[in-house]
Amino acid sequence: MITDYFSNRSSVRKFSDKPVPEELLYSIIERASKAPTTGNMQAYSIIVTRDAEQRRKLAEAHFNQPAATAAPVMLTICADFNRFTRWCKISKADPGFDNFLSFTSAMLDATIVAQQIVTIAEMEGLGTCYLGTATFNAPVIAGLLHLPELVVPVAALAIGYPAERGEATERLPLQAFCHKEEYPQFTDDEISTLYRVKDEFEPNKRYVREHTKESLAQVFTDVRYPRKMNEDFSVAFLEYLRKTGFLKTEL
Amino acid sequence: MITDYFSNRSSVRKFSDKPVPEELLYSIIERASKAPTTGNMQAYSIIVTRDAEQRRKLAEAHFNQPAATAAPVMLTICADFNRFTRWCKISKADPGFDNFLSFTSAMLDATIVAQQIVTIAEMEGLGTCYLGTATFNAPVIAGLLHLPELVVPVAALAIGYPAERGEATERLPLQAFCHKEEYPQFTDDEISTLYRVKDEFEPNKRYVREHTKESLAQVFTDVRYPRKMNEDFSVAFLEYLRKTGFLKTEL
Repeated sequence: MITDYFSNRSSVRKFSDKPVPEELLYSIIERASKAPTTGNMQAYSIIVTRDAEQRRKLAEAHFNQPAATAAPVMLTICADFNRFTRWCKISKADPGFDNFLSFTSAMLDATIVAQQIVTIAEMEGLGTCYLGTATFNAPVIAGLLHLPELVVPVAALAIGYPAERGEATERLPLQAFCHKEEYPQFTDDEISTLYRVKDEFEPNKRYVREHTKESLAQVFTDVRYPRKMNEDFSVAFLEYLRKTGFLKTEL
Repeated sequence: MITDYFSNRSSVRKFSDKPVPEELLYSIIERASKAPTTGNMQAYSIIVTRDAEQRRKLAEAHFNQPAATAAPVMLTICADFNRFTRWCKISKADPGFDNFLSFTSAMLDATIVAQQIVTIAEMEGLGTCYLGTATFNAPVIAGLLHLPELVVPVAALAIGYPAERGEATERLPLQAFCHKEEYPQFTDDEISTLYRVKDEFEPNKRYVREHTKESLAQVFTDVRYPRKMNEDFSVAFLEYLRKTGFLKTEL
C-alpha cells in the first residue's frame, strides 16, 4: 500500500469546499519537522495563509496559477537563519550565517520539510501542489508575510481536499536521471530516446498544438520559462538575497 | 503506523554489513521520481556510488563524517539543467536555463527527490543520513563524478541497513518555526524559551562540556559552522556556480 501511494501520487490543482481542520494541519507540520536538517539547525520557517485576502494577494505573486487561486490553505516555506542568528547572539556566540553557503543549507532544510509535509498531507487524504514560483517573486511574498532579514521564501504549497484526483503525469525513464558511478556521456540520439516519453505524452502533444509550436521543448523555452523571464527574475532574486543579508561578503 | 514512522524517524550513521540489493535501490529511486518537480522538468540527476575506492574519495570530500565512511551506498543528488538544455537544442528550442533562477528551481527539484528517496528507503527498512556538505566541496565532488556543466551536487545521502537505530534528536516546538498569517516579532526571552529544548537536551549539554564552551550556540559558531569556514566555502561555491554555467549573466 505504501508502495502504491508513492508510485501513484500526483499533484492536485482543484480543491473541494471541505475545510482543512486546524489540528490536522498542525499535526502534519509537526510530524514533518522530524525530517532531517543540516546540523539539526532547522533553518526554516513555515507561514500558514488561510485569510482570503492574503491568499488572493499571494496567489497574484504566484501568477494566479489555478492551484494558488483555488487552495484554502497556502504554506510558504522559507530558508530562515534569522531565528538561529538571534539565538546565537542571545547565547554569547558569534553567528556567521549571513552568506551564500548558509542560504543553500537553509534552502535544503526548507525544501526537505516542504516535501515531508507533502508526503504526510497526501497520506492523510489531502491534495497538494507546489507553487514553483516562490523564488520568482520572493520580494513581493516577503513583503506580504512580513519576513525579516535572513528569511527567504523558497517553496510554496497549495493544500486542500481534492475536488478531483490529479492527472498522473509522465516521468523520464530511470536511466535518464540515475547513473552508476559517474555521469554518462549521452549522444543526441540517446537524449531523444530518453525524452520520447515526454514528447509523446498525449497532454504534452496537446500543449504543442495549442501553442502552435514545433516541439514540446519550445513550449518550455518560448511559453513557460523563456530566457528573458528567467534572467530578469535571476537578477531580482540575487538582489533580494543581497538585501536580506545572505550575500553580504560575496556581492 | 504511518503516523508512527514520521514521528519517530531518525537518521542512521552506523550501517550493518548486509548489502543493499540493486533491485530495491533502483525501485526506491524510481518510485521517488514520482515526486513533483518544477514544471515536471525533472531538473536533477542522481549518481549512485558503490565502488569502494570512489566511496573513500567521496567520504573525504564530505570531511570523512562517520555516516559517509560507513555507508555501502552513497547517492549524490544534483541540480541538473544540462540534460534538459541538450533536449531543447535537439528539439529546435532556445534553452535559457544558464541562470541563477534556474539553479534554484533545479536545486528544489533535486532536494524534493532526495527527501522522497529518504522516506521510501526508511519505510523499506533502510537507514539514511544526509551529508549536508555536498555544496561545501561541490567542485571536488563534481570532479570525482565527472559532472558536466549545469550539473551541481546539492545533496548527498548515505544509505545502508542500520547497525543500530539512530539516536532520536530534539526538535524546536511548533510555534518556533510555524506561523499563522505572518512572521512574528519574537522577543529575546521568547527565543530563549523556544530554544530551551535544544539547550537542555542531554547530548547537547555533553557537546558543550566536551568543547569547553559556554553555550550550545557556541558549539555551532566556534566548532561546527564557524563564520570563516562558511564564508570561504560561499566564495568557492559561487565561483563554481559561475564556472559551471549557472551565473553566466549575473556574475
